Order: sequence, then structure tokens, then C-alpha cells
Amino acid sequence: STSPTPAEGSVALAVVPGDGIGPEVTAEALKVLEVAAPEGLKFEQTHYALGAENYLATGEVLPDSVLEEIRRADAILLGAVGGKPNDPNLPPGILERGLLLRLRFELDHYVNLRPSRIFPGAVSPLSADVLAKGDVDFVVVREGTEGPYTGNGGALRVGTPAEVATEVSVNTAYGVERVIRDAFARAERRPRKKLTLVHKTNVLVNAGSLWWRLFEKVAAEHPDVATDYCHIDAVMIYLATDPQRFDVIVTDNLFGDIVTDLAAAITGGIGLAASGNVNPDRTAPSMFEPVHGSAPDIAGQLVADPTAAILSGALLLDHLGHPEAAARIEEAVVADLAARTPGAQRRTPEVGDAIAARL
Amino acid sequence: STSPTPAEGSVALAVVPGDGIGPEVTAEALKVLEVAAPEGLKFEQTHYALGAENYLATGEVLPDSVLEEIRRADAILLGAVGGKPNDPNLPPGILERGLLLRLRFELDHYVNLRPSRIFPGAVSPLSADVLAKGDVDFVVVREGTEGPYTGNGGALRVGTPAEVATEVSVNTAYGVERVIRDAFARAERRPRKKLTLVHKTNVLVNAGSLWWRLFEKVAAEHPDVATDYCHIDAVMIYLATDPQRFDVIVTDNLFGDIVTDLAAAITGGIGLAASGNVNPDRTAPSMFEPVHGSAPDIAGQLVADPTAAILSGALLLDHLGHPEAAARIEEAVVADLAARTPGAQRRTPEVGDAIAARL
Ligand SMILES: CC(C)[C@H](C(=O)O)[C@@H](O)C(=O)O
Ligand SMILES: CC(C)[C@H](C(=O)O)[C@@H](O)C(=O)O
Repeated sequence: STSPTPAEGSVALAVVPGDGIGPEVTAEALKVLEVAAPEGLKFEQTHYALGAENYLATGEVLPDSVLEEIRRADAILLGAVGGKPNDPNLPPGILERGLLLRLRFELDHYVNLRPSRIFPGAVSPLSADVLAKGDVDFVVVREGTEGPYTGNGGALRVGTPAEVATEVSVNTAYGVERVIRDAFARAERRPRKKLTLVHKTNVLVNAGSLWWRLFEKVAAEHPDVATDYCHIDAVMIYLATDPQRFDVIVTDNLFGDIVTDLAAAITGGIGLAASGNVNPDRTAPSMFEPVHGSAPDIAGQLVADPTAAILSGALLLDHLGHPEAAARIEEAVVADLAARTPGAQRRTPEVGDAIAARL
Repeated sequence: STSPTPAEGSVALAVVPGDGIGPEVTAEALKVLEVAAPEGLKFEQTHYALGAENYLATGEVLPDSVLEEIRRADAILLGAVGGKPNDPNLPPGILERGLLLRLRFELDHYVNLRPSRIFPGAVSPLSADVLAKGDVDFVVVREGTEGPYTGNGGALRVGTPAEVATEVSVNTAYGVERVIRDAFARAERRPRKKLTLVHKTNVLVNAGSLWWRLFEKVAAEHPDVATDYCHIDAVMIYLATDPQRFDVIVTDNLFGDIVTDLAAAITGGIGLAASGNVNPDRTAPSMFEPVHGSAPDIAGQLVADPTAAILSGALLLDHLGHPEAAARIEEAVVADLAARTPGAQRRTPEVGDAIAARL
């Protein structure tokens, strides 16, 4: 079932811990989820060994039968997937396209949701002058099923001096309108009610025109939402010098990928950035994962910060219809961050324990 | 003639002041160029009224006859083009595609060069902790004639719920190898000799594979250059938290557009960012322009900072074979920046005069 509020009693949770630090941070997210869950709500976890390690051992990325099992879950919690950089046995894209993106596309995760907030106590790389302008608290609604991520494109005469390689960004009125509608609805629920479209309409004129026209059309139905447009390059400048100007951003798959990593960096690092791959129509389970990768360089040492995974668990609870439980996790994280001693290094389970203890 | 060191005596300079603050900053760049030029070198300027204003008045963007005239110049100095945002008479892309990009493509500006350095006295939005890690001084070599900028793509059933719009990124071995070779040569001439390829090989697997293979191939011919690879999303994090790691970056047209605006922001703002659209084979004149736009909101007030235009003039002199004169301009700018009083606003010609006076 993928109903908004699954029956008290039991949530079928597909867990994909993945590689590297993935299993370490997922364990803490699960620990906190169990404690935060409303009384009577139980998670029935099924763990799936998917990722680089599994691929190297079995040659399989995501068997159809596993996908069909996962499709029947209420929600998915993912840690991180990815092997050692430049492993010759792991061609670039094999896990990304075959596992991560396949899940997003097959389960129609058209809203890739990435809240970006500078929590008190978080260490931002921005200057005191920039931070003094006010609180930074915005959310990026990244389209998740179209754009340059569709795998369209190809190559001709590979390996010769005459090689041509193409990548095709595919944008449909169907796909663009639904994510824009979702973003307007989210903007409407926030106090500032402001939505910024990010694109590159002055160069990518076909896709840009489609995004722009549908944005204008849906805007007319939401006169209470203030709207704004920014080229992707200008957004770089604003995120570095005036991130306070943003409330909700809606953008395409690739621009969203880029914007959200910068957003994560300026709000205190990828160790805090959570994300939801959401199917708002609930025709398939949504998937929640930290924005960070598997960080093979620090795997096994239990030094990874599990906060992003824990906050992804909060997004999961919110999506399942438990906003109060989600808010409790966020409050516990805020309290934990505020209490951190700069320079002091806690082990991964210690962070999870500390956050769970505050619940 | 487009020879590396045009005859002493005379450089045929095509000047496109453009719109908004374009003419204001171009006037200062020309003022400084005249003073900085080596003895005996004269600029024979031909000014071309191209841009939004001209288009609105005449309906023409870049007549073929004008292009052919410009093609015979030794170099081009461009201010900025672009009209008021959302002017219904200026469809998005008309000037960008028809003028700026047409010049870059027609004149084969395959190296879009964007130096990024935090000058002493410049105000960076990065924190003291990040800046304390060391000097920031890198250059981005952005491909200028391929990628998603080719204008390939189209739209079907426009304006209906079944609309499909595509943008095609075109990458050729010919185009990718030549820009990578240029970047290696530039890295080789710098003290740190480090080159980072930026792409998204894990998702854009066709183009990514081409870029990666040619990068590896050319790297093998340059064992003295240290190489590195970064996904475009990871670059966002590094530019915000550790920009010191970069020396030379080579990347595609769209990623380069995005990276260089963030680079401009962190190094003290778009008011300082210069660029060269370079044809290294000298089969046509190269074009030098500030990274900033025409800023119609502040046009006519003479408050724009002409430093980016002035530094673009330095890149022009360097390209014409006068590196000492270029270095003198840069030194004058460094001295001017160091002497700026925070908060004090000088008028555009005052900044030009102050920099010219230091030469
Ligand atoms: C790993 C990669 C395919 C993925 C993406 O590009 O979407 C990641 O960067 C992300 O942002 O979730
Ligand atoms: C104006 C626009 C076409 C241009 C680009 O995208 O290249 C600008 O942003 C730049 O970086 O020079």
C-alpha cells in the first residue's frame, strides 16, 4: 500500500543500506525512526543488498524481481551506493543509471525534494556578513524523471577522431506541469509563499520556453504565491551572496542536482542534507536518502555524520502522514547540532544515540 | 589579420559596447587599454551598435555584413548585451543565440577562458575559515562551441498538453580534444600544473565517456601535469568550501557557464570577472568581455564597476602577444582594489581613471 497514512500497526519499509558509509548512517536513521514513530506504528523492514559491492559479487544491479518486491513497500530508505572511484570493474553510470535512477524513474519519483536550511550551530562556509542578512531556509523541488537524466542520447564512431556523443534533455508538458504544480502547492503551505523557477531559458530555448509557459500558467492559478525567475548561472551568485532570497525553488533534473549540492554546501555541508524522491500521486513508494554519497575513503571507521540520513527519515515520516513525528526528529537534530562542540569528533552511533535520546 | 603579435602600429579593434552598463564599462576598458598599450601600438577602433537597443530599433540582431566586417578585426571588445527583463519585444534567446553565441560559434571561440582569483582587498562571500586555507587562483577553460549550446533540439505539439521539448548536447572528439589540449597547455605554464576535468560522467554517460577518454589520452602526453576529475555537483561543494584545490578546470559549455558564475561570486563578485572567448588557432578574432550582463537596473547612473571590462582588456592584450602590458593592467587593478575604501562608492569613470593613473 502507498496510501498517505498507512494503517497504524505496520509500515512495509524497504531498506537499501548500500555501500561504504551507507549501512553505517542507515543504521542510525532506523534507530531514530523507531524511537520517533508514533505509538502503535511499527516498521517491518526488508533489507536489500544492492549497490557496488553486490554488483561486483553478483554482476546484478537491480533484478526485476527485487524491483517488483520494492514496488510493494510503503516507503524506501536508502543509504548510499557507489564503489571506489575509478574501479575498472565499475563502469561510470552503471549503478547510478541501473539502480538509483532506475528506482527514481520506475517508481515515478517526479518530485526530488531537498530542504536547505542553516540550522543553528551548523558551520556554513559563507561569511558572517552574508549570514547576518537573515535565516536561510528554502526547499528545492527538483524534477526527477525527465531532463538530461532520461538516458536519451548516444554515440557514433566511438574511439575514432570522428566520434560524436549526444545527450538529450527530454521535457514534456506532462512532466513539467506536474512538478510545477507540486512546487506551487508547497510554496503555498509556507509562510513566505514564494516560488522561483530556475532554468536557462536564454540558451535552452525549447525546454526553457516549455518550463516558462507552464510556470506562468500555474502561477495564474496561485495569485497568493509570489513568483520569480533566475537563470541557473545567476542562482550560483545568489546562493553564495544572498541565499535568504529563496523560499521554494523549482527546476529541472540536472540544474536541481547542481543547485542542491551548492545548497547543501552553504547550509553546513553534505553531512546534513536530506532528500526525498517523492511520488506525490502515491502510485509507488517514495524513497528517502541523504544527498551524500558512499564516501568509500571513510567507510568502516564509523566517523560519518548520520544526520542527513536521520533527517531523510524525518521526510519519510512526513510523507507517510506523520508530520508531528517528523518535526520531533528535526527538533532533536536542531538541539543536537546546537550542542555540538566544534572540533569534537563523535562516532556515527554516538550521534544517532544522542539524537534518539532527545526524542 | 589575426596573427599572434599584430604589427606594431595598429590593431584593428571591433568594439561592441552593447546595452545598459555595457557602453559605460567599455569606455573605461578602452581608456585603460590606450594607456597600457606598449609604445607604438595603436588601436584602430570600429564601434558596432549591436544589442537589445539596436534590435528593438532595427529588427536586426547581427547582419551578415557586420559579421564579415568583425571577422576581419584583430580582436573584439564587448561590453554587455541584453534589454529589460521580460520585455515582450525581446523573446528569450534572441540576442544570446543571435549575437553572443553566434559570434562565439562563427568565430570558433572554442576556449572560453575565465580566470578566477581572489585579489587582495576583494570582498568574498566565503567565511574567514575557508579563505584562511590559502590563495584562490584558478582558471576555468570552458568549451565554447559545443555541448547544450549548439541549438540542437526542438519542440513538438507546442502549447498542447502533449508538448515535448528537447535540448541536445552535441560533443565531438574534434571539439573536445582541442579544448582539452588547450587546457593542458595552460596548466603546464602555471606553477602548480594541475588540471581538473569537470563533468557528470555518472549520468551523462555518452558525453562523459568521450570527455573522460580524451582527457586520459591527452594526460598521457603531459606526465608533468597532475590530473583530477570532479562531478559538476561535487565542484559546487569544493568551490564553496575548498576553492584552493583548483588550478585549471576544463569543462563543457553549460557546466562552464555555471561553474564560472560561482567562481566569480566567491572571488569577489561579477564586477571583477573577466573572460576571453578565444580562438587559439587564430583563424578568426577572439572576443573579450566581462562575465556580467547589461544590468539595465543600474544603467545610465555611472555606478557600475568597470573592473571586469578592464581586466578583459588585459586578456585581450595578452592574447595579442603583449603579456607584459596585460600584467601591468592586472597590477594596477590589484593596487586599486587594495586601496578601495569599503562602502565608498566611486563612479564608473573614476574607477577607470584611478586604474589608468596607476599605469
Ligand atoms: C549519484 C547521482 C546519480 C545522483 C544524481 O545525479 O541525481 C546524485 O548526485 C544525487 O544528487 O542524488
Ligand atoms: C548570456 C549567456 C548566453 C552567456 C552564456 O550562457 O554563455 C552568459 O551567461 C555567459 O556566461 O557568458
